[in-house]
Amino acid sequence: ELKTFLSQKNPIDLAGVLPSLPATECALCFRLLEKPKAVEVFESLEIDDQQTLLAGFRDEQVRDLVEHMSPDDRAYLLDELPARVAKRLLRMLSPSERQATSLLLGYKENTAGRIMTPEYISLKTYLRVSESLHKIRKIGLDKETVYYCYVIDEQRKLLGMISLKDLVLADPEGRIGDLMHREVVAVHTDDDQEVVAHAMKKYDLLAIPVVDREDRLVGIVTHDDVMDILEEEATEDIYRLGAVAAPEQSYFKAKIFTVATHRVGWLLVLLLTNTLTGSIIMDQNTLLQSVVALAAFVPLLIGSGGNIGSQTSTVMVRGLALQEVTFSNAFLMLLREVGIGLILGSLLGAMVVIWAYWLQGDWLVALVVGCSLVVISTIATFFGGLLPLIFVRIGIDPAVVSAPFISTMVDVLGVFTYFQIARLIIFR
Amino acid sequence: ELKTFLSQKNPIDLAGVLPSLPATECALCFRLLEKPKAVEVFESLEIDDQQTLLAGFRDEQVRDLVEHMSPDDRAYLLDELPARVAKRLLRMLSPSERQATSLLLGYKENTAGRIMTPEYISLKTYLRVSESLHKIRKIGLDKETVYYCYVIDEQRKLLGMISLKDLVLADPEGRIGDLMHREVVAVHTDDDQEVVAHAMKKYDLLAIPVVDREDRLVGIVTHDDVMDILEEEATEDIYRLGAVAAPEQSYFKAKIFTVATHRVGWLLVLLLTNTLTGSIIMDQNTLLQSVVALAAFVPLLIGSGGNIGSQTSTVMVRGLALQEVTFSNAFLMLLREVGIGLILGSLLGAMVVIWAYWLQGDWLVALVVGCSLVVISTIATFFGGLLPLIFVRIGIDPAVVSAPFISTMVDVLGVFTYFQIARLIIFR
Ligand SMILES: [Mg+2]
Ligand SMILES: [Mg+2]
Ligand SMILES: [Mg+2]
Ligand SMILES: [Mg+2]
Ligand SMILES: [Mg+2]
Ligand SMILES: [Mg+2]
Ligand SMILES: [Mg+2]
Ligand SMILES: [Mg+2]
Ligand SMILES: [Mg+2]
Ligand SMILES: [Mg+2]
Ligand SMILES: [Mg+2]
Ligand SMILES: [Mg+2]
Ligand SMILES: [Mg+2]
Repeated sequence: ELKTFLSQKNPIDLAGVLPSLPATECALCFRLLEKPKAVEVFESLEIDDQQTLLAGFRDEQVRDLVEHMSPDDRAYLLDELPARVAKRLLRMLSPSERQATSLLLGYKENTAGRIMTPEYISLKTYLRVSESLHKIRKIGLDKETVYYCYVIDEQRKLLGMISLKDLVLADPEGRIGDLMHREVVAVHTDDDQEVVAHAMKKYDLLAIPVVDREDRLVGIVTHDDVMDILEEEATEDIYRLGAVAAPEQSYFKAKIFTVATHRVGWLLVLLLTNTLTGSIIMDQNTLLQSVVALAAFVPLLIGSGGNIGSQTSTVMVRGLALQEVTFSNAFLMLLREVGIGLILGSLLGAMVVIWAYWLQGDWLVALVVGCSLVVISTIATFFGGLLPLIFVRIGIDPAVVSAPFISTMVDVLGVFTYFQIARLIIFR
Repeated sequence: ELKTFLSQKNPIDLAGVLPSLPATECALCFRLLEKPKAVEVFESLEIDDQQTLLAGFRDEQVRDLVEHMSPDDRAYLLDELPARVAKRLLRMLSPSERQATSLLLGYKENTAGRIMTPEYISLKTYLRVSESLHKIRKIGLDKETVYYCYVIDEQRKLLGMISLKDLVLADPEGRIGDLMHREVVAVHTDDDQEVVAHAMKKYDLLAIPVVDREDRLVGIVTHDDVMDILEEEATEDIYRLGAVAAPEQSYFKAKIFTVATHRVGWLLVLLLTNTLTGSIIMDQNTLLQSVVALAAFVPLLIGSGGNIGSQTSTVMVRGLALQEVTFSNAFLMLLREVGIGLILGSLLGAMVVIWAYWLQGDWLVALVVGCSLVVISTIATFFGGLLPLIFVRIGIDPAVVSAPFISTMVDVLGVFTYFQIARLIIFR
C-alpha cells in the first residue's frame, strides 16, 4: 500500500517530503521505489539532504543510486562531498560512469563543461529518418532528452542538429544530412553558465550542445538546468546588490554565525570607509561650532545622494547583466545617468532650500544645502554609473556596486562636498 | 542572393539586425523571407520594433504577419498597441484567430490565461499510440510544442498528459488511456505568471497546461516564455530593491524624462521622511553645541545601520520570492535576523568605540557611539526583516522594501536613538 502510494506520487513532490521523515523510514521508502524513480527522487533532493541520506544508506544502496544518476547531477554532488567520500564513491562506479563524471569534474565550477551531461543522442548524416527513429527507440530511455538530436562526423565534430519534431514530421526515407539544421547555436566547455543560459533563453532552446576546443561535441545542457541557473544567477546578483556574500547553499539553512561572517566583510569595509566622514566632520569643528545648523542637514544630504546613486547602480548592473548596456552604448548611458542625477538633484534641491530655510531661518545655510544636494546627486549618479562599467572591464562582477557600497561612498564624498560648499558660500 | 542569405540566418539573429536597417530595406527583407520564417522573425522582435514595422507595412502584409503569429505573442502585441490600432488589427484577423486572441486578452495581464497559447495537441484516451502519432504528424507543424500532448475528455476536462518520448518509445498498439500520466501539474487561468514559472521550474517541464475553473484545458505555457518570465520577474525585483519603478519597456530605451519620473517618486517619499532627521538634530541644538564631537559620528552610525538593514531586507525579499521564507518559518527567520543584527552591531560597535576615542579623546562620547551602533543595528535588522513580511501579508510586493527605503528609515530612527543614548549617558 505504501509502495503503490509512492509509485503514484510525482518524484519531485516525494523529494520535498521524504527528507523530513525519520532516517530509517526514508531509507525504507527509497527501497520501495522502483529504481529509476528512486534515482529521480534522489536527484531532485537538495544537496545537503543527499549527503545526509547517503551517510545513512548501505554501501550497496549508495552505489545503486549514484551509479544511475545523471552525470551532471552526480558531478555536482561529488563536488560538494568531502574529498575522501567523493573518491570512495567514484571508485564504486562502473568504469564508463566514472569516466563521464571525471570528465565533468575536470572543468571549472559554473562552466558549461561542468553542468553539461554526456547523455545526448547523436546521429550520422547518412542515416535515414526511419533508422534514426529506430535508434532513438533503442537508446532514448537513458538519454537526458530525445527531443534534440545532434549530428556529428567520425571525429565527433558537430555538424548540425535535428529535432524529434523534424524527424516525426519528415518522410521516413529522408536522410539526416539533408534535413538537419546546419546553423547550430553551441557553447564551449569553458563558457560561464550565464553564457549558456543567455543563449538558451535568446534562441528558445530545449538543449544546447557543448563543444570542446576542436569543435567536438562533448555534452549538452538541458532547459531544466537552465531555468535553475537563471534563478541562481538572479539570486547571486540580488545578494551582491544587497552587499551580502551569497552562501554556497541556501541562505536560510546556514548557521547564524556562518551568515554573520558572510555579511561582516562588506560591513567592515564600509565601516572603515565611513570613518572618513567622522574625520572630515571633526576637521570642520570650528565651522560647525559657528554654524551648528549645518549639522542638521548632513543625514538628509548624504541619504538622498545615496538613494539617487543606488538607483543608478541598480539599473546599470541589471542593464549589464541583461546585455542592454554594452561597450558601444556604455558612455551614452553613463552620460544619461549623470543627466538624470542633475535633473533629480535640482528638483529635490529646490524643495530642500525652502524646507531648510523654514527649519532654521538662515538663507545662506539653506542655499548651501540646496546647492550641495545638486552636486552630491550628480556625483552619486556619476560613480553609480561609472563603477559598474569599470568593474566589468577589469573582470569584477559589477553587482558588487551595491546600494550600501554607493551610499557609503556618497557618505564620504557628500560630507566633504557639503563642507566645501559651506565654506565657499558662507565664508566668501 | 539576399534571399538565400536571409533563409540561412537564424530568425532570432535576423530579429536582432533587421530593426536597425532603414524602413524600406527592412520591409523588403520581410517580403523576401518565407512566410513562416517572417512570422518567427516578427515574433522575436521587441515590442516597439514591432510597432514601428507595422506602421510602415501595407495592410495586406500586416494582416499576413499578424494572422500567423502565435496567439500569445499576438495578444501581447495588441495589448501594447493603441486601442484604435488594436481594434483594426483584430478586425483583419480570421474569425478563429480573432477568437483565440480575444480569449487571451480577456484575462488579466501577467496571468497564466494571458500568456498561454491555445495551440497545443490534445488526445483522447481511446486513441492508439500509432493513431496519436499520425495525428501529431498531421497537425504538429502549427502547434507550439509537439513534445507534450494533453489528454482530455468530451468536455475538454484535463485527464492526463503523455510526452512524445513516451509515444515514440511505446508499443504502437497501446492505448493513450493506459499510457498517460494521470498526475498532471497544471495551473489556473488566473494564476500569476510567477506561479506558472515556479511550477515549470520545480517540475522541470517543457510546457504546463492551463485550466479554467471547470478544470477544462484552455491552453499551455511553454518553456521559452517561462525563461523570459523568470528573468523579467528577477529584473522587476532588482529594480524595486533599488527603489526604481520598472518601466514598461526597456529602461535603456526610455526617454530621459520618463526615467526621471520613474525615479522621482521614491526619492520624494524618502526625502520627506529624511527631513525628520533634520528636525530631530535641530531639536538637539543645545546638546550638539556643548558636545560638537557628537555630530562627527552621525553619518557613520546611520550609514552602517542602513547597510546592515539592507542586507536583511535583501535576503528576506529574495527568500520570499524563492519561497524559502514561508509563513511557517517567518518568525524564526526574523528572530535570526535580529540575532545577526545584534552580533554584527556588537562587533562593529566595539571597533567604533576605540576609533571614536582615538578621534576625539572623550570616553563618554566613544561609549555613546558604540552603544548606539549596537542598538541601531538591531533596530535595522528588525525592520529590514519585519517589513517585507508585513508587506507580503497585506498584498504589497515585499521588494519595495529596498535598500534606500531601509536606509532612510534607519536615518530617522538612528539619529533619534543616537541622541537619546547621548542624553542618557552624557547627562545622567
Ligand atoms: Mg535533472
Ligand atoms: Mg545514466
Ligand atoms: Mg526567448
Ligand atoms: Mg541535468
Ligand atoms: Mg555567476
Ligand atoms: Mg552574474
Ligand atoms: Mg546612507
Ligand atoms: Mg515564441
Ligand atoms: Mg497559428
Ligand atoms: Mg528544476
Ligand atoms: Mg509563446
Ligand atoms: Mg510580477
Ligand atoms: Mg515578484
